[in-house]
Amino acid sequence: MARINDNYLKLKAGYLFPEIARRVNTFAQENPNANIIRLGIGDVTEPLPQACQDAMVKAIADMGDRNTFKGYGPEQGYNWLREKIAQHDFQSRGCDISADEIFISDGSKCDTGNILDIFGKNNKIAVTDPVYPVYVDTNVMAGHTGDANEKGEYEGLVYLPISAENDFIAQIPTQAVDLIYLCFPNNPTGAIATKEYLQSWVEYAKKHEAIILFDAAYEAFITDPSLPHSIYEIEGAKDCAIEFRSFSKNAGFTGTRCALTVVPKNLTGKASDGSEVELWKLWNRRQSTKFNGVSYIVQRGAEAVYSEEGQAQIAQLVKFYLENANIIREELTKAGLTVYGGVNAPYVWVKTPDGLSSWDFFDKLLHNVNVVGTPGSGFGAAGEGYFRLSAFNSRENVLEAMKRITTTMKFSS
Amino acid sequence: MARINDNYLKLKAGYLFPEIARRVNTFAQENPNANIIRLGIGDVTEPLPQACQDAMVKAIADMGDRNTFKGYGPEQGYNWLREKIAQHDFQSRGCDISADEIFISDGSKCDTGNILDIFGKNNKIAVTDPVYPVYVDTNVMAGHTGDANEKGEYEGLVYLPISAENDFIAQIPTQAVDLIYLCFPNNPTGAIATKEYLQSWVEYAKKHEAIILFDAAYEAFITDPSLPHSIYEIEGAKDCAIEFRSFSKNAGFTGTRCALTVVPKNLTGKASDGSEVELWKLWNRRQSTKFNGVSYIVQRGAEAVYSEEGQAQIAQLVKFYLENANIIREELTKAGLTVYGGVNAPYVWVKTPDGLSSWDFFDKLLHNVNVVGTPGSGFGAAGEGYFRLSAFNSRENVLEAMKRITTTMKFSS
Repeated sequence: MARINDNYLKLKAGYLFPEIARRVNTFAQENPNANIIRLGIGDVTEPLPQACQDAMVKAIADMGDRNTFKGYGPEQGYNWLREKIAQHDFQSRGCDISADEIFISDGSKCDTGNILDIFGKNNKIAVTDPVYPVYVDTNVMAGHTGDANEKGEYEGLVYLPISAENDFIAQIPTQAVDLIYLCFPNNPTGAIATKEYLQSWVEYAKKHEAIILFDAAYEAFITDPSLPHSIYEIEGAKDCAIEFRSFSKNAGFTGTRCALTVVPKNLTGKASDGSEVELWKLWNRRQSTKFNGVSYIVQRGAEAVYSEEGQAQIAQLVKFYLENANIIREELTKAGLTVYGGVNAPYVWVKTPDGLSSWDFFDKLLHNVNVVGTPGSGFGAAGEGYFRLSAFNSRENVLEAMKRITTTMKFSS
Repeated sequence: MARINDNYLKLKAGYLFPEIARRVNTFAQENPNANIIRLGIGDVTEPLPQACQDAMVKAIADMGDRNTFKGYGPEQGYNWLREKIAQHDFQSRGCDISADEIFISDGSKCDTGNILDIFGKNNKIAVTDPVYPVYVDTNVMAGHTGDANEKGEYEGLVYLPISAENDFIAQIPTQAVDLIYLCFPNNPTGAIATKEYLQSWVEYAKKHEAIILFDAAYEAFITDPSLPHSIYEIEGAKDCAIEFRSFSKNAGFTGTRCALTVVPKNLTGKASDGSEVELWKLWNRRQSTKFNGVSYIVQRGAEAVYSEEGQAQIAQLVKFYLENANIIREELTKAGLTVYGGVNAPYVWVKTPDGLSSWDFFDKLLHNVNVVGTPGSGFGAAGEGYFRLSAFNSRENVLEAMKRITTTMKFSS
């Protein structure tokens, strides 16, 4: 008799974004003429950079010629891409990361979930609250938690609350934890981390022999030169951190699929016999056995991000979305709402007005002005009373959404 | 203190193909002028079908226009691709499989490993011996086994030996198991399954409430019209089987990356409270949470496989590789070797001559004639004394490899 993984039954109804899609689809069916503007899911809308398109068309031609055809590539990714990433994203910022510490993948969502494969069942795991739901759900599915309480908090996880009270910066815990998820620029709050703040996490991790799982998917949106783009800009981070990066948001690859994970070679975890084991070897084995590399065509597209044209084109994309974020900030502020984030980050984190719950505000925006956002409570109990708006949309849609909100809704925050 | 997944330490040195690569690289460095012909890893060599190339170039143009740009796609794959697969690969053969039972992925290797996420730790698992190593290694990594013995067999797994003695067709076990991996046409032996044989497995699975994990990655190589391409051609299979398919071998997608998994909606497993849970719901949740769909560009390439031109082009590819298999069979037989498979399958399974071990024969072929194959023992203890040659290569290389073997080596099998 085949047994299922019972841990899945602990998961709360639907992953956040499918639930949003369900509500929006129901509304759209009942209101077929509504012009719905989606500022909910953090999905890009602007065309792929021309440099990436050109490189992929050329790669397809390679695949059409027996002499340049590519079969299975290295599971870790092609060296020509890993080298460019190492040089451009890390070494140029003073981070001592080499090409063979970079693993190319088809997405950061996949990597942040799959990384748990190499860790044991008996780690104490910390997440911020609110947090990107994938970190929590994948731990539930892996059996690292007990059941959820009525607030949706899973037994066994350590929740680090972030809110306006602490400027959306989690306090370093006093207790020892073993794995810590950090995301900066933050999804969902748009908060950023200074070098000093990350330094305190690195010191904590080294003291407790913990591993920081650092999600830098939004680093391209940092414009303040004093802010770190990578955890490896912090001294000592190579001994205690894994970093996740993506081409989804800087180069518009959400539908093209390419990302990367950095696992430094000297990074270790403890086996149950007390010996230290290199995490690089475990992740390399995991990827070699359960993954077959990213499409050659897509990797050529990602490589083009590092060409001169590619760099200019992604800079334009990032600038465009940051302008959207600024418009959202300014207009909502004018409308009487209190907003956070949206500077050095593509997400604006809104305090719900009039004491509304996050889902009530979601329904109100959807029904009254046909604008879709993301309820803060979907990111965790401490996200209740907040709402996320994404800057990933066309200028026209952002302006129209803001106009609808500012002209037809009245708030007192 | 971060703890690692100790199960990884049970894995034997290196996944088979990295170990082959290591030996070949060492030889190549010591013999820089050797013209090495690789018939080891099952990797295609012929150009991508023109229809797939054209569709992908068009998809890139879609990505370059704001009006047709695609961001995140459905995690399960686009419906236009799932519909074509359902109609062409299943419904046309009388299999009652619908589009929403098909999950598009980036590879069958990934899927056959990831599928374990939705099953519990307490299943009895059966594999053939020899077997595709990923089935075994992913179970080891997931903690479903004990340690390996000196023959490389892991405690807790049920091994079903296949050899010339039973025509490479595993006997149905007398004991109850919960999950069974079957692969037809078989990797590595090239053996095929009749409908009657699969029917007996379906009856076994239904009797024991077991799930068959059916790997049909090589179904395109079946030319005998009496043989089943899908397990769902067998009555009752929808109640007990998950099927894996791939575009890697029929359309040359090993470097392009697209595959699919079929999880029928009525298929269930047992929770520990005895309730029945739909596996479709669990897999859908797994894919929604830990996967972000396959590149839009690649899915358009896969869709083109089902166009009229695409069908003609992949038929040519399959015919070409089957002709290679036939050449390998005939030439090795002339050289005095005993061969199996290579008919309705792209793999030829060779009995090693002169009582040589699989790895000794590997080294002998590599050193004497610079031909790379795969040692049968790499696929399991019962593969010892066998050797796999792949038909995936250019005609020129296959002819040259066979010429070297037949003219310079003498065998007595």
